Amino acid sequence: MPDSAQKPVLGILGGLGPAASCYLYQMLIDHTPAQRDQDHIDLLLCSRASTPDRTAFITGESQADPLPFMLRDAQRLADGGATVLAIPCNTAHYFYERIAAAVPVPVLNMPALVAAEARARGCQKLGILATDGTLLGKAYQLVCQEQGLAWAKPAPAQQAAVMRIIYDQIKQGRRADIAAFNAAVDDLKAQGCTHAVLGCTELSLVKRDEHLPDDFFLDSTEVLCRAALRACGVEPVGF
Amino acid sequence: MPDSAQKPVLGILGGLGPAASCYLYQMLIDHTPAQRDQDHIDLLLCSRASTPDRTAFITGESQADPLPFMLRDAQRLADGGATVLAIPCNTAHYFYERIAAAVPVPVLNMPALVAAEARARGCQKLGILATDGTLLGKAYQLVCQEQGLAWAKPAPAQQAAVMRIIYDQIKQGRRADIAAFNAAVDDLKAQGCTHAVLGCTELSLVKRDEHLPDDFFLDSTEVLCRAALRACGVEPVGF
Repeated sequence: MPDSAQKPVLGILGGLGPAASCYLYQMLIDHTPAQRDQDHIDLLLCSRASTPDRTAFITGESQADPLPFMLRDAQRLADGGATVLAIPCNTAHYFYERIAAAVPVPVLNMPALVAAEARARGCQKLGILATDGTLLGKAYQLVCQEQGLAWAKPAPAQQAAVMRIIYDQIKQGRRADIAAFNAAVDDLKAQGCTHAVLGCTELSLVKRDEHLPDDFFLDSTEVLCRAALRACGVEPVGF
Repeated sequence: MPDSAQKPVLGILGGLGPAASCYLYQMLIDHTPAQRDQDHIDLLLCSRASTPDRTAFITGESQADPLPFMLRDAQRLADGGATVLAIPCNTAHYFYERIAAAVPVPVLNMPALVAAEARARGCQKLGILATDGTLLGKAYQLVCQEQGLAWAKPAPAQQAAVMRIIYDQIKQGRRADIAAFNAAVDDLKAQGCTHAVLGCTELSLVKRDEHLPDDFFLDSTEVLCRAALRACGVEPVGF
């Protein structure tokens, strides 16, 4: 057997939730220039659906800490041969520094990658569509600050609707209430946002299923997908 | 952290090819009764796309042996906590006994599960739609014999078309030539087949995308999905 230890292997710390991880996996396949199986990247995916809810812990609603699960799985992915890790859950990036410090391989930082892309696309003010946990943890606010970008979040009523879309609709395998989604987007536009990040991987599923336009939305899953392919030596196609 | 070592964990020996593995992952999600992330099963997926082609090795066209890759990955999945393994590649089941003997956890036998289901559905003669490697390895012929089922395979010209659909179309991310596919199916029906197995996980993608009917086709990925969910304590819904 040829020594494949030299070959890049993507480790996906996933299941947060499973549908979002599966969508990243499909996206990696779809955007790889491939004529045969062996043209695709090797990857290990840990879909640990039993990881406690990230938002519930960050907001203090639950004492069940997801970090020990993520640390154990990140280490197992590295032990299994992953050479770079991706975490297809924006809210989990609340724990980014602690995960990145604990494993011997690089970990892609999804919010930081999104903010850099927003800046490159000429964004002046970034709307943040995300969970309460992501907003409370300030992952996007901090990376916007680092990139010199203004930011805004939906007003409370619209944010409550975003949470319902994520938890009561998408995570339950249902379609999003697109009128409620558009109301949140309109609120961000009224606040002067030139772009908005789909800063929850469940909202990436809304973009896919409702064909949301690329000119206003930055899709965190798409940004992560491109970075992951490049980290594995593949130049993505078809975006 | 609660000890999750007691919880079932599905290990997927995948990437053979990646699109078929991703489809199994999506199917597992879609057929789990879930109101939240934590209702889904935990799983580890090794998408080792670099595994040498199974059919090319079995037919002698290539000397690159996929077995050492699969043995290493199967062991790693077990080491990582998988309590049961699934292999979403029919052709790889040529190596089933050697993989099952090498790991300390049960490995689902996709052709055996399909043949049992065919018998339960009253099949009299099973058409085998599969790769040249699967046909040469006789995985389906042997399990049909065990279940007392007659079987047939497409005539050479139609089998060549099936191979083109798998390798030149589906594995390259293209749509299947459905006229050529239907010609192979007609050939099986002319040979008296009451049912046919989509005995290549790439052909499961043809069923999904072309809406092939459930009354004639047994989809090996669907059979594997149901068995995998049950092995993890979940009764599948929505089939």
